[in-house]
Amino acid sequence: MRTQVAIIGAGPSGLLLGQLLHKAGIANVIVERQTGDYVLGRIRAGILEQVTVDLLAESGVGDRVKREGVVHHSIELVFAGSRHPIDVHGLTGGKVVTAYGQTELTKDLMDARQAAGLATVYEAANVSLHDFDGTRPRVRYEKDGGTHEIECDFIAGCDGFHGVSRATVKDAITEFEREYPFGWLGVLADVPPVSPHAIVYGNSERGFSLCSMRSMTRSRYYVQCPLDDKVEAWSDQRFWDELRRRLDPELAARIVTGPSIEKSIAPLRSFVAEPMRFGRLFLAGDASHIVPPTGAKGLNLAASDVKYLSSAFVEYFQEKSAAAIDSYSERCLRRVWKAERFSWWLTGLMHRFPDTQGFGQRMQEAELDYLVHSRAASTALAENYVGLPL
Amino acid sequence: MRTQVAIIGAGPSGLLLGQLLHKAGIANVIVERQTGDYVLGRIRAGILEQVTVDLLAESGVGDRVKREGVVHHSIELVFAGSRHPIDVHGLTGGKVVTAYGQTELTKDLMDARQAAGLATVYEAANVSLHDFDGTRPRVRYEKDGGTHEIECDFIAGCDGFHGVSRATVKDAITEFEREYPFGWLGVLADVPPVSPHAIVYGNSERGFSLCSMRSMTRSRYYVQCPLDDKVEAWSDQRFWDELRRRLDPELAARIVTGPSIEKSIAPLRSFVAEPMRFGRLFLAGDASHIVPPTGAKGLNLAASDVKYLSSAFVEYFQEKSAAAIDSYSERCLRRVWKAERFSWWLTGLMHRFPDTQGFGQRMQEAELDYLVHSRAASTALAENYVGLPL
Repeated sequence: MRTQVAIIGAGPSGLLLGQLLHKAGIANVIVERQTGDYVLGRIRAGILEQVTVDLLAESGVGDRVKREGVVHHSIELVFAGSRHPIDVHGLTGGKVVTAYGQTELTKDLMDARQAAGLATVYEAANVSLHDFDGTRPRVRYEKDGGTHEIECDFIAGCDGFHGVSRATVKDAITEFEREYPFGWLGVLADVPPVSPHAIVYGNSERGFSLCSMRSMTRSRYYVQCPLDDKVEAWSDQRFWDELRRRLDPELAARIVTGPSIEKSIAPLRSFVAEPMRFGRLFLAGDASHIVPPTGAKGLNLAASDVKYLSSAFVEYFQEKSAAAIDSYSERCLRRVWKAERFSWWLTGLMHRFPDTQGFGQRMQEAELDYLVHSRAASTALAENYVGLPL
Repeated sequence: MRTQVAIIGAGPSGLLLGQLLHKAGIANVIVERQTGDYVLGRIRAGILEQVTVDLLAESGVGDRVKREGVVHHSIELVFAGSRHPIDVHGLTGGKVVTAYGQTELTKDLMDARQAAGLATVYEAANVSLHDFDGTRPRVRYEKDGGTHEIECDFIAGCDGFHGVSRATVKDAITEFEREYPFGWLGVLADVPPVSPHAIVYGNSERGFSLCSMRSMTRSRYYVQCPLDDKVEAWSDQRFWDELRRRLDPELAARIVTGPSIEKSIAPLRSFVAEPMRFGRLFLAGDASHIVPPTGAKGLNLAASDVKYLSSAFVEYFQEKSAAAIDSYSERCLRRVWKAERFSWWLTGLMHRFPDTQGFGQRMQEAELDYLVHSRAASTALAENYVGLPL
């Protein structure tokens, strides 16, 4: 098989890239290790920056997110028993974020890809990448008992943190990592969100909590938990009780509970691999970098990587210029590191760390006090939250 | 001897408090362990917030700082070989800082105290504080072979980090501390400052540097150094060479060198003792809290403590109200912690830490990049630098 861009991974990054390339008349094939249903079943992020919403529209799948996505004009910080709204919309001159589940976004992109009749190879085993140092890269995989090969001009590694793309170049990258001494216990439930117009970030003596949503009838809640905690130890009842204890009484009283439809514990991690380009292999999204979910930046960073990458490919094929390809890694990483910084900072600000009696805890309290009383500091939070300019 | 307020320590905090109380007709005596010349010889901070300049004027010693102090409208950050001015004046709606050596400020206050004929006991040995839990506190000290006692209504502990005041209540306080893995090597020299209109903060691969000034003919420069470094290892020539290497070439070429008139290495420390009030004993300034000098907040925090404390005493004696005395500790600490946060943050942002290849270093670079390109983030820096509202 021969194509222009072989895309590894059919998650949101790969699907979005495929769609944008298709719109520009660039042939592409997606190779995915899992089944489509598996990909669709992954519960992940759900807060979209405007840049991401715009990109969905550009790729031809913006209708449903526009119709069903819930626009948030503000966020709310809850600490020391008080609620502090941050008017993100007002502080950024009218910018907003949109709540829309990653599952829905993936589905929209899959449907569009199918409708366009684009090639997607699911359940491709033992995917391997070859010759991307030269001009004729190849992607090899096994399926249905045979070995197959795709010849292409470029390979886009959109296959996430555990994918083959970064693993293939592991000797050529420098890794930066920060781990955090806690995890997030997340629950998805078909109940109306307690705060349908603002994501709520809570920092209480019992730890972090987050009230977010996927739709007006589906809520996503989190509480900070020890890294070695087991999901089996958390009945739904225990989760709801704990969440309530971490909010102010008024919000707590308004929480509508219901059976969890997903419940899981995830560690938090900051990770960046540099560079993001290796000859004719390009990494995008989680394949290259991970943020703790606190700032809701993971999916949005993947989207901006994809925007840069699709533009670079378009420039290459349509204008015969390699300039954007050559600057891809640097351009992405500058934005990536700023989002990493924001995610790391917000994580540090809103969680309880083991040293809860010490200097660090007082720094956190002083910063929260400063943040909600300073327009400049609130604006800095808001402009990062909605996404820094591309 | 009998007075209304016994002040321990004749540094800027104690002298300023004495002057403000005197203006309000409140009798006070200062008890100082050292000689006046010793106090005057201490080379310390030199950047005054407007709040501090205003307080000097209020205490009747504002003429010389107004005449000789050098107003700074901006600061400059130097990193990755580039200079980035921060327009502090423009970003804060017209606020500035004033360069004026602590030595000069202390001299102004000493002169005023002498002119007013107020009692100051220098070289008071074995100072001890008594009965501040009751209504008749006493200060005892030895001098000229005899033991003396001052009866008073209140004791103000303005005797710095190593003073007797905090030591006296050590069982009643909670301490918060952060040490840093480096020190500052400082040089004072009678040469024109390289940057007479903006303090320059440098972060280079070789470490932090600071170009500040005491007057148009006296400069104060610093370079980050290892904690175990010895001042004897630093000839003047080595210092100037090192400073130049940490600046961008244009600034480096403009440095005017000369013999050092003071050269010393100081560790950096964040420290807060809570509370700041113990019955009728009140701590103010360094006796209660220390900041790393990066944010130039030490002297200014002492000044705001003194402002709160003098107001509280005036309210007590003139209006027979203990309200301000009762809220003194909480009021101070809220401001103290914000200044501690700013100083800690700026220290972390501008110094090189042992892990220069890791995630933390990239966070620093991303934050610097963000800071100088975001008006909101620059404003947050500027508003802290000129001093948050009282």
